Amino acid sequence: MLKNDLLIRALQRKPVHRTPIWIMRQAGRYLPEYREVRKKTDFLTLCKTPELAAKVTLQPVEIMDVDAAIIFSDILVVPEAMGMRLEMLESQGPRFLEPIRSRSDIEKLVTPDVSQALRYVEDAIRLTKRELHGRVPIIGFSGAAWSLFAYAVEGRASKDFKVAKELIYACRSDAHALLQKLNRVLTDYLLLQIEAGANAIQLFDTWASLLSEDAFLEFSLTYIQETVQTIKTKYPNVPVIVFAKGANTVLSEIAKTGCDAIGLDWTIDIGRARWQLADRVALQGNLDPMILYAPHDVIRKEAAKILQKFGEHSDASGHVFNLGHGILPDIDPAHLKTLIDFVKSESTKYHHQIQFSLTQKDKKDDSVS
Amino acid sequence: MLKNDLLIRALQRKPVHRTPIWIMRQAGRYLPEYREVRKKTDFLTLCKTPELAAKVTLQPVEIMDVDAAIIFSDILVVPEAMGMRLEMLESQGPRFLEPIRSRSDIEKLVTPDVSQALRYVEDAIRLTKRELHGRVPIIGFSGAAWSLFAYAVEGRASKDFKVAKELIYACRSDAHALLQKLNRVLTDYLLLQIEAGANAIQLFDTWASLLSEDAFLEFSLTYIQETVQTIKTKYPNVPVIVFAKGANTVLSEIAKTGCDAIGLDWTIDIGRARWQLADRVALQGNLDPMILYAPHDVIRKEAAKILQKFGEHSDASGHVFNLGHGILPDIDPAHLKTLIDFVKSESTKYHHQIQFSLTQKDKKDDSVS
Repeated sequence: MLKNDLLIRALQRKPVHRTPIWIMRQAGRYLPEYREVRKKTDFLTLCKTPELAAKVTLQPVEIMDVDAAIIFSDILVVPEAMGMRLEMLESQGPRFLEPIRSRSDIEKLVTPDVSQALRYVEDAIRLTKRELHGRVPIIGFSGAAWSLFAYAVEGRASKDFKVAKELIYACRSDAHALLQKLNRVLTDYLLLQIEAGANAIQLFDTWASLLSEDAFLEFSLTYIQETVQTIKTKYPNVPVIVFAKGANTVLSEIAKTGCDAIGLDWTIDIGRARWQLADRVALQGNLDPMILYAPHDVIRKEAAKILQKFGEHSDASGHVFNLGHGILPDIDPAHLKTLIDFVKSESTKYHHQIQFSLTQKDKKDDSVS
Repeated sequence: MLKNDLLIRALQRKPVHRTPIWIMRQAGRYLPEYREVRKKTDFLTLCKTPELAAKVTLQPVEIMDVDAAIIFSDILVVPEAMGMRLEMLESQGPRFLEPIRSRSDIEKLVTPDVSQALRYVEDAIRLTKRELHGRVPIIGFSGAAWSLFAYAVEGRASKDFKVAKELIYACRSDAHALLQKLNRVLTDYLLLQIEAGANAIQLFDTWASLLSEDAFLEFSLTYIQETVQTIKTKYPNVPVIVFAKGANTVLSEIAKTGCDAIGLDWTIDIGRARWQLADRVALQGNLDPMILYAPHDVIRKEAAKILQKFGEHSDASGHVFNLGHGILPDIDPAHLKTLIDFVKSESTKYHHQIQFSLTQKDKKDDSVS
């Protein structure tokens, strides 16, 4: 039983008394407590040591009082589990030593038993869960097939992922072969996370922003839909959030995958998005991460704008406050705390009607009893 | 008098028998003829030597048979003319040696007489114009205030333009002071280009993609509108194209600036954009530049899709074919030629109704005479 189930209720578009908040990349370098752990441990070792992964997963819950934990890991552990050698250099960001460049590279990728190959994530979730004692839900996650594909083919983050995009346009069937293979493994991996105790799932498709609408539908959304359907068939009560960065012109298509919520980056007005989607899904987001550099009063003003743009909640609307992308490593934790505290108090006013109707209901129930 | 006025007619939403095409960054490194010129001349010297700038401006007209020339220059010549020292290193891209970091930096920027400080661009346009003999129109351009601001503050291209964005959120009035100053100069500069003979104008706002809708409206579109209005008041017949990359959720707001056309990047379906804007402006774009890496038949297929998505032309619709961003330096010119030839022939079928009505009109005129 969860003591704070605001996140789950909001994702399921059930009434809540305030808007829940968590922060993408909330366990990370901006926290001195995280940097303390990292002093002694490199990034991959941290991911692969359940005790340490659980420890940093809990940090933002304890320090920032957010409404959810998200398991500390990296989207690239999936291709790594499929046999790709991954190097994480502090200075350069993650890099695959032998990027996928041919059909035979694709065929050489293994389709592992995730409960073996990614056992360390399962263990980290179980451990975190135990230490959370139901304080808040825990979110499991994976990169979406297209974003994993982009890294696996390019080898590393790049401005335009030229090699990856060349592959989809020039060798379409090879591209689909790789996407299918990645998707099978990442879907198994998400199921494993749910079995270990994840209460909600987020699919990250950061590199959706590189694709045309047609290419997004063909090379990304098809696979996202497959994953969402598999999860929802097996675990209908576990909410699934799809965060496809930059895919702001195809939100309706994303909603049709059957996901419970759509994560929005900061470039679309959340009021416009809600209007378009008419509460068919919950929305998550969408503060520009850069706003956390601004003074405290600007942070409050900008957060208020998002709450106001989303507007009054109905009986079947859902909003989870978050940034529009991951928090930056040089943000002052005090600025984030200002945001979190403000959203918790300010958001109550947009849930008035619901509180009112709940109160009315209570009264009626009282009078009947 | 222009022999080929397809671009101008399409931008003004007048009937044409086929869709015109030009290519962003069409005078550039992908052309061996351009690289030949650059062997002997660095980038800035090329910009500042009217004979050479005119020469490379004409190259794509002569080699690729595009429907417009665009004057060879760089958006950063404006801040340079305002006193910012610019360094163009082949290896690193352009860089301002002393980026704007304080109110006093903003105040120190000069507001030059552009007919002196940017005389070399005026001369290059006059020279190009003379050598074009009216074959095709010539496009003048500038970076929009926000994109110039982003470079001037950041100092160089960056993934997220953190310093520039920190400035707009933390020091809003300073940001506006700088934007106003930049906008005054760039507007004068565009008027100068029209006086020198530019037949159309494009405002490039590449870094619009970094902004939330509210921030885009406040820090970019306000200034774009001011520029468009100034140009259209003075030169109502010179079409103005606004290309705000990534601003796909605010196309209607861009159309309200009074511009004649909106440039689209490749991430929005052009059919969806046309439907939203209902032919209130012409559209330009929007092939993913990466598609030019693909085999010739894929290029034709993808170009056909864009023509088909835009659909049948009406009496008051306009489409200018282009890429959704600049052509990449390692594209094979033969691939670009395939695109251009295909668009020219394939597009005629979408202008049938107009040709038919023109023919009917001709017949009627004949019968009357």
